[in-house]
Amino acid sequence: MNGVNLEQIQSAIRTIPDFPQPGILFRDITPVLADADLFRQVIDLLAEKTVNFGAEKVVGIDARGFLFGAAVAYKLGLGFIPIRKKGKLPYKTIRYSYALEYGKADMEIHVDAVRPGEKVVLVDDLLATGGTAAAAAHLVQQLGAKVEAALFFIELADLDGRKHLGDVQVETLVAF
Amino acid sequence: MNGVNLEQIQSAIRTIPDFPQPGILFRDITPVLADADLFRQVIDLLAEKTVNFGAEKVVGIDARGFLFGAAVAYKLGLGFIPIRKKGKLPYKTIRYSYALEYGKADMEIHVDAVRPGEKVVLVDDLLATGGTAAAAAHLVQQLGAKVEAALFFIELADLDGRKHLGDVQVETLVAF
Repeated sequence: MNGVNLEQIQSAIRTIPDFPQPGILFRDITPVLADADLFRQVIDLLAEKTVNFGAEKVVGIDARGFLFGAAVAYKLGLGFIPIRKKGKLPYKTIRYSYALEYGKADMEIHVDAVRPGEKVVLVDDLLATGGTAAAAAHLVQQLGAKVEAALFFIELADLDGRKHLGDVQVETLVAF
Repeated sequence: MNGVNLEQIQSAIRTIPDFPQPGILFRDITPVLADADLFRQVIDLLAEKTVNFGAEKVVGIDARGFLFGAAVAYKLGLGFIPIRKKGKLPYKTIRYSYALEYGKADMEIHVDAVRPGEKVVLVDDLLATGGTAAAAAHLVQQLGAKVEAALFFIELADLDGRKHLGDVQVETLVAF
């Protein structure tokens, strides 16, 4: 693909020590979002993967996954489905609870968000422990749709989040 | 603009009674997001307005504003800036506290998010009381940038949110 420079993208990610807790190195993507050219490159790469996996809908995970997922869906002319933290979606939902690195979380999807057999990709900013993405995949599958892949901008490789995603194919753009 | 049907878009918005509280009619945009053609129309309309206001960056408000703002920024080749609830942005921030319909909230922006004199538009899904958007405008202005307009998918006209936005120009696509 023309004009893509993953090293430049990776070097624009800002590392913030001790956020949200002491000892954590947080990867701050806001400088990438703010740079029109870098943001375009990231979306174009994620969109290319979305096409390759034959997705019919894009599922984005609350909240930073909304940034990437919605832009990918728009670019490709696909519908967008949000998966959100408990209590945010107003219509009937199904819920999945899982352990987080710092506690516990519940994710929800609307019961009519996807159709049985429909092919989707999950999009989020970061693959860390993989718990949130695995919950999202579980919710989509519970509604009978197929998770063709989970796509992430950043992977924290040491945390081995891929193992939580089982048979779901995982692709990421940059790794730390 | 070709292929835009605001009545069709408005009729796809699902009204959920008593969410998040008894007596509230919640306007659920997820059927619009899930429909590739309707989502495209909404983004194209917001993008057209963003161009007309000469925006150099798009500022989106956590979390549903991320969906619209990021897609508009991508379409136009502009950078995207998030404004988030307290504690979510990892770098140095400034904060603005304001009264909500159901309590109090604090919004933050990174101190290096915009440059003095830069022209931005705010994008969010919903103009209700206007408190969140006014806080966002205040934060951008505190950093010396210019809020050329605040753009919303939906306006709850009875709540008169425009009055909170003072001199900021407000444009919305559909009103209830």
